[in-house]
Amino acid sequence: MRRVAVIGVGLTKFGEHWEKSIKELAAEAGIRALEDAGITGKDVEAIYGASMSSGRFANQEHLGALIADHCGLLPKPAVRVEAACASGGVAFREAYLAVASGAYDLVVVGGVEKMSEVPTEEATSILGAAGDYEWEAFNGATFPALYALMARRHMYEFGTTEEQLAAVAVKNHENACLNPFAQFQKKVTVEEVLSSPVVASPLKLLDCSPLSDGAAAVVLASEEKVRELKIDAPVWIAASAQASDTLALHDRTSLVSLTSTRRAAELAYKQAKLGPRDIDLAEVHDCFTIAEILAIEDLGFFKKGEGGKATIEGETARNAKISINTSGGLKACGHPVGATGIKQIVELVLQLRGEAGKRQVSDAEIGLAHNVGGSGATCVVHILRR
Amino acid sequence: MRRVAVIGVGLTKFGEHWEKSIKELAAEAGIRALEDAGITGKDVEAIYGASMSSGRFANQEHLGALIADHCGLLPKPAVRVEAACASGGVAFREAYLAVASGAYDLVVVGGVEKMSEVPTEEATSILGAAGDYEWEAFNGATFPALYALMARRHMYEFGTTEEQLAAVAVKNHENACLNPFAQFQKKVTVEEVLSSPVVASPLKLLDCSPLSDGAAAVVLASEEKVRELKIDAPVWIAASAQASDTLALHDRTSLVSLTSTRRAAELAYKQAKLGPRDIDLAEVHDCFTIAEILAIEDLGFFKKGEGGKATIEGETARNAKISINTSGGLKACGHPVGATGIKQIVELVLQLRGEAGKRQVSDAEIGLAHNVGGSGATCVVHILRR
Repeated sequence: MRRVAVIGVGLTKFGEHWEKSIKELAAEAGIRALEDAGITGKDVEAIYGASMSSGRFANQEHLGALIADHCGLLPKPAVRVEAACASGGVAFREAYLAVASGAYDLVVVGGVEKMSEVPTEEATSILGAAGDYEWEAFNGATFPALYALMARRHMYEFGTTEEQLAAVAVKNHENACLNPFAQFQKKVTVEEVLSSPVVASPLKLLDCSPLSDGAAAVVLASEEKVRELKIDAPVWIAASAQASDTLALHDRTSLVSLTSTRRAAELAYKQAKLGPRDIDLAEVHDCFTIAEILAIEDLGFFKKGEGGKATIEGETARNAKISINTSGGLKACGHPVGATGIKQIVELVLQLRGEAGKRQVSDAEIGLAHNVGGSGATCVVHILRR
Repeated sequence: MRRVAVIGVGLTKFGEHWEKSIKELAAEAGIRALEDAGITGKDVEAIYGASMSSGRFANQEHLGALIADHCGLLPKPAVRVEAACASGGVAFREAYLAVASGAYDLVVVGGVEKMSEVPTEEATSILGAAGDYEWEAFNGATFPALYALMARRHMYEFGTTEEQLAAVAVKNHENACLNPFAQFQKKVTVEEVLSSPVVASPLKLLDCSPLSDGAAAVVLASEEKVRELKIDAPVWIAASAQASDTLALHDRTSLVSLTSTRRAAELAYKQAKLGPRDIDLAEVHDCFTIAEILAIEDLGFFKKGEGGKATIEGETARNAKISINTSGGLKACGHPVGATGIKQIVELVLQLRGEAGKRQVSDAEIGLAHNVGGSGATCVVHILRR
């Protein structure tokens, strides 16, 4: 397989975009990524798009071709990849494999979701389709409820507290304040999280990632193309790994660990010949505060059961033991589902290039992106290095 | 890029499956494909799934992982690919690229759709999401209406007749009578087609492919794996090509030709170092009778404008000039949208192996699959040879 690098990145602001359609959001991020790479649409050989549920959020399937069409990239082949909330990460992986195969030298991967236009209850139902519909959503189990079960069990087994969960939100909101593309550039306190309305006990409103509109895009290039274009600061894909688990929580052996994360991380570390200690920063999938705690444990940054304590003690803050979710994470940067996995890559690239402004991690050399679908049925892990 | 072969194929019957869920259909086809390849789930390294709109037809996104889960293939990575009615063909291409890249040696690609459970009007609305929603479906243009515009223009420019359109249906129903997996194993006459209810003039009910439930699956292997498994009759992927066009019909330069088909075919013939005359049989995307006529012209089997005449004169019947849609096509074998592109591959493989029973084409060596998304915004062409 050929080596592949990220040579361009682009984002829209995450938040509510009442004035822009799904294809306009995708185009905005895509054009920024092309400009950042110093290329034009003519150079692009294929388009990979990610969206969890454009069919239900926007009455529009066939999103790959739609974006190619709207961006003037015809007749280039276009694909949409879907793996629930891991759609972005999985699309990135597919694009990586296509370039690694030799089929293309230069591709764009974009993720997008436009969630504000449907009522909140409908959005909750649409997101429920990421779980096992027959066993979960059909019986009323929403996503906050599923993660609440994991939180309760983590509290029961390891003594994790609601304050520790809240500390995840507090840190991620702090990071988001330094990210001009984040949805919530606003600090919150532990007390504010604890006193926010209960969504599914023990998870409160401020433990949950929001509904968001937004898009993210990156440009991938083969090593040959990186040389040809004389790219100054390519960021190389050192590992790409993916694993699956049961959709339904009741089929799993544990509620306090995601097998898919552990499996994908193991494969990724092996590919990159690296371990958890080598990682300078990670964007992890904090759709709920408990999810970040599970992630930093399952990725090997902290021992199982110690994620909550590590967070409240500041070990996951910028430039602490490991910098987690410097973008603000899903929690505070926002979670336009299909865009999230790509946004994680964008953040890592900015950090590894030293272009992350006020939230820059010092001497960032190696970053990890961790994108989860549903309650953990899909996990995809990428390791990037400069 | 490494050489890749199809080493196993499996289908469910196409039709109405009230007693089986979407995951059960996928598993049934998948298991048959594994058995046909002589392998077990343990050997499979990744799962590629295709579905156009499982979110709206079955309240279920995240279909890749769901199928991996239901088939006992955890923790293997699973992906869902969507490109409207070309989802199957595009998923096949993605899986091909992944094996060609060296990432995997053995993968399963399955396509599935379960469309019977929603009311017909809702299904029509869901299928409308394959076009440009803002310009077409929103304003009431259904898919039969879009293809009716193409048919009218073809009739105007080339004198194509309603009888010639009907001849496509007659031939495909004849072929379907010899296919035990086909939805409509029943002959129709030109008169019956012409007198069936008008859906969108000039298209009548029997000019349209049906709503269907069903699944199809194939196993792909690298050349190394083909040798290791001592596969008797591997069918090699000689070309894989894809192209895009505008979603909205009004943006195109022609209504009587699909640019995406012409572009993908050109690339595919070049890759395979073959021309239209070398193709023994083709499965083409006949979602409506006019679509088959456009396809056989755009693929270079007949001159532009002569497809209707060629069809009514029997040149596309089995063992005639070129055997088109020996499976019965979308028209009579059925069109469970996500499964269609994979079913086309299954039919080619059976024919190239000489296992197509009563509908066997003599001395079939080279086959072409042509899968279209929407009204032509995506087209993917594969050439297979034994």
